[in-house]
Amino acid sequence: MTPGVQIIAERSGTAFPLPCGAILTVIDPCGEQVADLLAYNARDMDEVISSGRTLDYAETIRLTTGHRLYSNRSRAMLTIIDDSVGVHDFLLTPCSIDTFLHFYPDLPPHRGCFGNLAEALRPYGVAPDRIPIAFNCFMNVAVDGESGNLRVLPPVSKAGDRIAFRAEMDLVIGLTACSAPDSNGGSFKPIHYRVEASLQ
Amino acid sequence: MTPGVQIIAERSGTAFPLPCGAILTVIDPCGEQVADLLAYNARDMDEVISSGRTLDYAETIRLTTGHRLYSNRSRAMLTIIDDSVGVHDFLLTPCSIDTFLHFYPDLPPHRGCFGNLAEALRPYGVAPDRIPIAFNCFMNVAVDGESGNLRVLPPVSKAGDRIAFRAEMDLVIGLTACSAPDSNGGSFKPIHYRVEASLQ
Repeated sequence: MTPGVQIIAERSGTAFPLPCGAILTVIDPCGEQVADLLAYNARDMDEVISSGRTLDYAETIRLTTGHRLYSNRSRAMLTIIDDSVGVHDFLLTPCSIDTFLHFYPDLPPHRGCFGNLAEALRPYGVAPDRIPIAFNCFMNVAVDGESGNLRVLPPVSKAGDRIAFRAEMDLVIGLTACSAPDSNGGSFKPIHYRVEASLQ
Repeated sequence: MTPGVQIIAERSGTAFPLPCGAILTVIDPCGEQVADLLAYNARDMDEVISSGRTLDYAETIRLTTGHRLYSNRSRAMLTIIDDSVGVHDFLLTPCSIDTFLHFYPDLPPHRGCFGNLAEALRPYGVAPDRIPIAFNCFMNVAVDGESGNLRVLPPVSKAGDRIAFRAEMDLVIGLTACSAPDSNGGSFKPIHYRVEASLQ
């Protein structure tokens, strides 16, 4: 495996600092897996990634290379600098035990990415109520423009696909390997990621 | 004017308690105007309306009669019980001075619905960072399912159109008359609303 690559085991999550200027690459090592990503301002954790601000500025729900992910204070937190997939979701909140009970009543409930993010971010002082809509790397949510209907489809990512972000401020990142069957084509897999000080 | 109707002047906002079971009707008195709506649990203001949870449960971005608006804790806060329009937005955050500077660089900047909501909710202990994506009554945001592109179009609401919500818990509501030219067809108008203890 490439040196410096970290592994997030299936159905788990992690959190780590990402300094301004550093590059975070999120890799789908097996294909068809989703990684929920959150970002907080490391110097003021009340500033957090905002789907609504980002979609407003981008004027699209299809975010890819060149787009910036904005905070609730309208400041750029991350810039997408590379993307081999082009299909990600920024509409839905991380799955939780409540959404498992709703969507998978016949399966053993799981705390989901919400629970995994809550645990990973607790040491940084993030309460569960402060977990917003995540940028869901590789998640494939089809929107029917006419009816408005949403469908969660298997990701189009293949083994080795990746998306890379540059930090535009000092951040704390939360990142998971998805726990919800519908989001990853019914199989649970790890997520890999790598942090580099810069692309130099 | 109908007894009990309250007026929100153009480009302003208000906040008020809405007890469990009460009915809130938001009325577009002139047509083609938008009202940004927020809801907080009156007994614990950390519980707040959540676009991501709501869209996940509804499996559509086109919310109308029968749909419930959920909190960040996956609990129903409001049920839409009547809707003469059927086109509302739950993707975008309220406009702020930053979004004005971005989208309308040639116009005098305005604090927007974000600033109006922040002021109206301050007496309830809501900090500006706690203002999430609002349920934007009558706002017409077209999504191209293929490209993902978003377009903010004039509302399809006509004079007298309305949407009504039943409170599913004791709430504090934030509500505005939109300040952003693109959202209301370029003219600023008031919003009317009415609160009834129940439909009986």
